[in-house]
Amino acid sequence: MTGAERSGGPVISQMTVAVLGGTGPQGRGLARRFAAAGLDVVLGSRDPARAAATAADLPGRVRGSSNADAASAGDIVVVAVPWDGHAELLAALAPALAGKIVVDCVNPLGFDQQGAYALTVEEGSATQQAAAILTASTVVGAFHNVSAVHLDDPDRSTVDTDVLVLGDDRAATDLVQELAGTIPGVRGVYGGRLRNAHQVEALTANLISVNRRYKAHAGLRITDL
Amino acid sequence: MTGAERSGGPVISQMTVAVLGGTGPQGRGLARRFAAAGLDVVLGSRDPARAAATAADLPGRVRGSSNADAASAGDIVVVAVPWDGHAELLAALAPALAGKIVVDCVNPLGFDQQGAYALTVEEGSATQQAAAILTASTVVGAFHNVSAVHLDDPDRSTVDTDVLVLGDDRAATDLVQELAGTIPGVRGVYGGRLRNAHQVEALTANLISVNRRYKAHAGLRITDL
Repeated sequence: MTGAERSGGPVISQMTVAVLGGTGPQGRGLARRFAAAGLDVVLGSRDPARAAATAADLPGRVRGSSNADAASAGDIVVVAVPWDGHAELLAALAPALAGKIVVDCVNPLGFDQQGAYALTVEEGSATQQAAAILTASTVVGAFHNVSAVHLDDPDRSTVDTDVLVLGDDRAATDLVQELAGTIPGVRGVYGGRLRNAHQVEALTANLISVNRRYKAHAGLRITDL
Repeated sequence: MTGAERSGGPVISQMTVAVLGGTGPQGRGLARRFAAAGLDVVLGSRDPARAAATAADLPGRVRGSSNADAASAGDIVVVAVPWDGHAELLAALAPALAGKIVVDCVNPLGFDQQGAYALTVEEGSATQQAAAILTASTVVGAFHNVSAVHLDDPDRSTVDTDVLVLGDDRAATDLVQELAGTIPGVRGVYGGRLRNAHQVEALTANLISVNRRYKAHAGLRITDL
């Protein structure tokens, strides 16, 4: 390690990032950006062949695999799966995810003619549900409010948004802020403890309303920082 | 009316804005800014003498009164009272508020050693509670995430933040966006329907976490608009 690296701490540039649900727009967009930043990325999917095809389309060091293999391979594991099936997938992968940092970016939303709305989650939020299931992992919430369209657009060099990072473990939230910061234009901002994750997930419903009204792909910036 | 004014619609510059709970930091800060923008402001309080004293300290056309008199006087009525007592106050003022636009900016939060957290509200949010009580008013949610410190700082010429405006009535949300825009630096942004108000109120808990971590007075900007 060089003197510029933090003493004893993990070094994001030497870590493998797994993205579960990596063939969906959010997961693929994040995988694209992490790979562009020079990280090793394993893109997981229920369908490994589809994961391999998606990975082949992305520049950088990205390979496709099953979600289970991705969970095993990642030092940091990003969960970008649909809300429907979130609990079941994490329960099945809990042994593989033990001892790792798991970054949940799932937004439990419903949709009807009036647009998107926040679903009630028994544990409080998707992130808290992950933490309740993955008792041997360190769960962090992040990347909830970032436009998948912007992330996955190869012609867009920067993604102009902050990422609120939620968690109860300072070293883990620091590392995930650093992970967010590998994406040009993105700033990782500590956004509070896990118990305050719900509203950050649910705010995506508001951003969808903004997108409809203003024909935009809205994101957030935190002012005065 | 001049040609520059909207045909038949309300003109914000000719309206009286009442601020209930106007002696608290958020209410006083909003009253200060609306008066600085040239609006007629009536600052309401449970204690009319305190309201008069606060009003006398503010520049512009601001007068103090009881909350009931303020509710009667305002064309637009901003509710900036503590969450504790919110329902009771609105129930008592419902007749005075009938036919008016009521702007709720109350954040139902709890506090403990770990900071702020969102309280559960039976109606879903403070704004929805207001709408449930004030069935003859048009209720809009706004100004939840604006720093009271910045609003109430006479040495700060602009407040660098967006205000998410929530509501089910387009004319009312348009008008409240215009009201927000009277504050230099502030942009009123439509943020969705009333059913999506909870997370905007609750997000104030996250901004309080941000403020603690970064020694800031954080606000929000919506990107890509």
